[in-house]
Amino acid sequence: MISLEEITSPSFLKQLSIPELEELCVQIRQFIINNVSKTGGHLSSNLGFIEATVALHYVFDSPKDKLLFDVGHQAYTHKILTGRANQFINLRKKNGLNGFLKYEESIHDVWEAGHSSTTISAAAGFLEAKEHDSSIGEVVAIIGDGSIQNGLAFEGLNYIGSQKNQKVIIVLNDNEMSISKNVGRLARRMSKARVRKGYLRIKRLTPMFLKKHTVRLKDFAYTAIYGNNMFRCLGYAYYGPIDGHQLKELITYFQFAKEAKSSVVLHLKTIKGKGYSPAECDLQGKWHGVGPFDVDLEQLKENIKPGRIPWGVGISSILSKILKDYPLTRIINPAMLSGTHLDCLQKDFDDRVIDVGINEEHAVVMAAAMARENLIPIVSIYATFLQRSYDYINHDVCRSNNHVIFLIDHAGFVSGDGSTHQGIFDISMLLPLPNMVIASPKNLIEVNKLLRFAINYHAPFAIRYPKGDVVDKIDEDNDLPLTLGQWIIEKPLTKVNILTYSDNVYDFLDNLNEENIGLIHALFIKPIDIDLLKSLKNTTLYIVEEVISIGSLASLVFEINSKENLNIKIHTFSIENSFPDIGTREQLRKQYKIDALSVIQTIKSKEETC
Amino acid sequence: MISLEEITSPSFLKQLSIPELEELCVQIRQFIINNVSKTGGHLSSNLGFIEATVALHYVFDSPKDKLLFDVGHQAYTHKILTGRANQFINLRKKNGLNGFLKYEESIHDVWEAGHSSTTISAAAGFLEAKEHDSSIGEVVAIIGDGSIQNGLAFEGLNYIGSQKNQKVIIVLNDNEMSISKNVGRLARRMSKARVRKGYLRIKRLTPMFLKKHTVRLKDFAYTAIYGNNMFRCLGYAYYGPIDGHQLKELITYFQFAKEAKSSVVLHLKTIKGKGYSPAECDLQGKWHGVGPFDVDLEQLKENIKPGRIPWGVGISSILSKILKDYPLTRIINPAMLSGTHLDCLQKDFDDRVIDVGINEEHAVVMAAAMARENLIPIVSIYATFLQRSYDYINHDVCRSNNHVIFLIDHAGFVSGDGSTHQGIFDISMLLPLPNMVIASPKNLIEVNKLLRFAINYHAPFAIRYPKGDVVDKIDEDNDLPLTLGQWIIEKPLTKVNILTYSDNVYDFLDNLNEENIGLIHALFIKPIDIDLLKSLKNTTLYIVEEVISIGSLASLVFEINSKENLNIKIHTFSIENSFPDIGTREQLRKQYKIDALSVIQTIKSKEETC
Repeated sequence: MISLEEITSPSFLKQLSIPELEELCVQIRQFIINNVSKTGGHLSSNLGFIEATVALHYVFDSPKDKLLFDVGHQAYTHKILTGRANQFINLRKKNGLNGFLKYEESIHDVWEAGHSSTTISAAAGFLEAKEHDSSIGEVVAIIGDGSIQNGLAFEGLNYIGSQKNQKVIIVLNDNEMSISKNVGRLARRMSKARVRKGYLRIKRLTPMFLKKHTVRLKDFAYTAIYGNNMFRCLGYAYYGPIDGHQLKELITYFQFAKEAKSSVVLHLKTIKGKGYSPAECDLQGKWHGVGPFDVDLEQLKENIKPGRIPWGVGISSILSKILKDYPLTRIINPAMLSGTHLDCLQKDFDDRVIDVGINEEHAVVMAAAMARENLIPIVSIYATFLQRSYDYINHDVCRSNNHVIFLIDHAGFVSGDGSTHQGIFDISMLLPLPNMVIASPKNLIEVNKLLRFAINYHAPFAIRYPKGDVVDKIDEDNDLPLTLGQWIIEKPLTKVNILTYSDNVYDFLDNLNEENIGLIHALFIKPIDIDLLKSLKNTTLYIVEEVISIGSLASLVFEINSKENLNIKIHTFSIENSFPDIGTREQLRKQYKIDALSVIQTIKSKEETC
Repeated sequence: MISLEEITSPSFLKQLSIPELEELCVQIRQFIINNVSKTGGHLSSNLGFIEATVALHYVFDSPKDKLLFDVGHQAYTHKILTGRANQFINLRKKNGLNGFLKYEESIHDVWEAGHSSTTISAAAGFLEAKEHDSSIGEVVAIIGDGSIQNGLAFEGLNYIGSQKNQKVIIVLNDNEMSISKNVGRLARRMSKARVRKGYLRIKRLTPMFLKKHTVRLKDFAYTAIYGNNMFRCLGYAYYGPIDGHQLKELITYFQFAKEAKSSVVLHLKTIKGKGYSPAECDLQGKWHGVGPFDVDLEQLKENIKPGRIPWGVGISSILSKILKDYPLTRIINPAMLSGTHLDCLQKDFDDRVIDVGINEEHAVVMAAAMARENLIPIVSIYATFLQRSYDYINHDVCRSNNHVIFLIDHAGFVSGDGSTHQGIFDISMLLPLPNMVIASPKNLIEVNKLLRFAINYHAPFAIRYPKGDVVDKIDEDNDLPLTLGQWIIEKPLTKVNILTYSDNVYDFLDNLNEENIGLIHALFIKPIDIDLLKSLKNTTLYIVEEVISIGSLASLVFEINSKENLNIKIHTFSIENSFPDIGTREQLRKQYKIDALSVIQTIKSKEETC
């Protein structure tokens, strides 16, 4: 048996027998469990797609045939088969192996994405290229049951379905889970597919039968076997459900699809977490993306300092009280209830905590309409996924000044996921929008105040907070009033001051010791505290932000400084014109020199030379 | 017969007989043709939805029942029936009647949108509100055949389809046209519905039959009558096609839907332009949105000065040469080929000019994938609709530095359409994105140069231009080189200079006479011309932009000015924190004081006081 580390290309698979391929799958499964237990990573989704990936690389010829992985939550086996097993020791680490596909890593990574549902539209682009470029073979879009429900995937399906001369192979990886439990009508229909009688019948069909007779099958017979579904309505030959863990069946279907003349959807039923029991039994998605864990004890290792809790857990606790205090509030979350730690709210508020699936666009429009009818919708969403809702935040929320509250999670650097998941564009995206208020609290006490303020403030209101942990303290200080746009002086002002926000404030509080430097917490990014800025006339201000530099808070300060003739000497620290790659939040803050120690060092050197 | 101007509420309809309602439709049709011939407006779509709107208001009780119009291209009859006939004289004029729905205009306008496909998600929000608010009656989403194909509509359908206790009525207004000819697989299926035999059979079915037997109809029988389609797959009872111009049939179906217990899709076949022959025969969408026209001559009035042409016509002519010169170029356009004047390219380049329907998201992802395989995609899109693609421009184009060119039409103020269509956010949206180049040419000569430059520049590149007309001159000066980021001195620099871009440059060239004021054309918004800025040290600079102020070019200039100690005195003229309402471009530029005369006047007053 080949050692996984010795693999350089997937072509070796062609020589293996089915039993050998099955043995390889066992080996890969063990490898993934062992490695992810040490490094953390996406466990369940990858365990569920081992056989399918082996079968894909057995049947297709990557990179001539284009294997497009949606998001790449299921690409570890692909990485192993394309010669990257020895890099798993540095999975999701700085300068290490990316958790998703990555153009730079391999010629076999032909489509790169961290946001879901782009694969089918991407396939349309590859098919267009194929028309003039004969070096392109089959185009295979591999997409999950959660991703296929996003509107973009539908657009792609509808488009290619209408192209008479183009053929795509869509491999639907259906684990009935998306990231946690799946929602939506389509999910229910796909789920029903498992128990349909046709399932048993299809298993008896040989591919030769399929190949020879498909075109001649009468519509009603086809329907009787496969049932009607959206894919057929959109012009695809649909086959499924197919057991996603039976290599022989998979290979048979993939070969059939390869030889088919027109577009095909293969509906694979896979088991998320397959082969590792805690992951298999997990309905909440706790084993979807994990930190290091103990394989034998089947326990995730907690790595939080005493007195601290994950931001999401704290927010969840705050929301639990808010849902009680304000009956008109509703929480809308696109498929990230587990990631945002709000899943525990569902027990008590089942009908008021709404998971809409990976439908960020729908989440925001639905929220806008709820606000029209006097509900108070709170949209809980990661900063990076908020990008999908830009037009709806602009057009449907801000334009009509609808009272929608956004709770933006994972704002700032996001450890481990790399360029696709950094939450560094939210401020530049929201700042230009009229009517929008943006706040960036440093702790849960401020979140609590801001949320209650936002509920009584009838305009769009965004509250952003980072990934990671926070001091476990909520209620104290609750009586202190909050004034819209007012900043907080955290350390007395001097001739040299630092302006920052979010929990970065603590980094400076912890590291500013004897230095004669003031510290301002820009609790509100918009509106800004013009009075406080005016009081800084003729001083030096260092603005530190964990977001992209263009369109950040600093850009507003530069403008006020000039227009009000404040003569403040401004220095900025933020992310200049780049998409930050993998790293822990701490590493990235150091790399971009926005951590307190780097900033203080720069201040000292600059102030000395003055 | 009631005079349309006397209508104050749609409740009077309940007393009318079918012949009287039919007579009313004739009256409304004549009214719309006459009025739109004078004011311009959306003609064809509104003529196609007269009977349906009368029937809707006859059966439902607005505003208790919520009639949600998607976009509102078909809402003129609704406006007439809700007491706004006398305002049509000021349709689409400053302070006049909005062409779409408008909350401020009427309690019957319960959902407001200028971007397509939001209605079903909005219905989900209304249904959520209905659960605690018994004053809300039926929720009716009225959506076109083009709009239903956007991903957001699918997300809404999928979501409500999964809600067991919620009922929506979806009225699919299918004129087989979208704005011009429809694309996509779903369109083809909807179109086939017209000729299906079931169409004849359904006409014989009485609604009582439907009501009594629907639940008992066996699946196969139901399928035989109505066919399978996406709506059924997603959990909706589907009825259609229904003749959208037969009042009696419409009323029967609407009443049935009102009494139904669960969600219903009513598929109406309507004729765009119904009752006005040039609009009925129009396949290009020339009569979709029109200026004033001569009713009897059936001719649109051309209102362009000699020597000028619409920007789109010029761009189209440039692209026609570019498609010949560069075989790898492809044009992708989301359902606006007619609006962007690129429809004429289809004749010669049928396979290289791709209309993807109202799928702005798909357009950009497909383009990114095409760029991966060395095609050169040019995405042609209105600035306001570009907002829908934000995440894909960020994540799929800029993040991987893919060579996608954006031709952004309708950048700046857009005459007539109001707040939903202004192209004022494109710069704030694109400026923060790493790798993106943004250019804003003043004429077609510059467009031509920029496009050729962009084709050879392997990074994301946006070229923006306004709605309206431009000097009909393309080739001259073509040999002059173009340098990335270099601005153009249009009038010699002095101590006081104006910085602007787009065709606003001409407004200043025309109006700066004897004044000792320099003029700079910021041909590139990003990267900016730092050398030129440095040369402005200790001068005064007036920056004039037809976009939202936050995140505009000025914000970059403020930053450079401060960091480089240039001591430039900067004044800005742009759109401060608001969503501009209806007006002509000229009116809005005056209102926001960014027209040359207003700016020059301000400069004079300021410079005198200095």
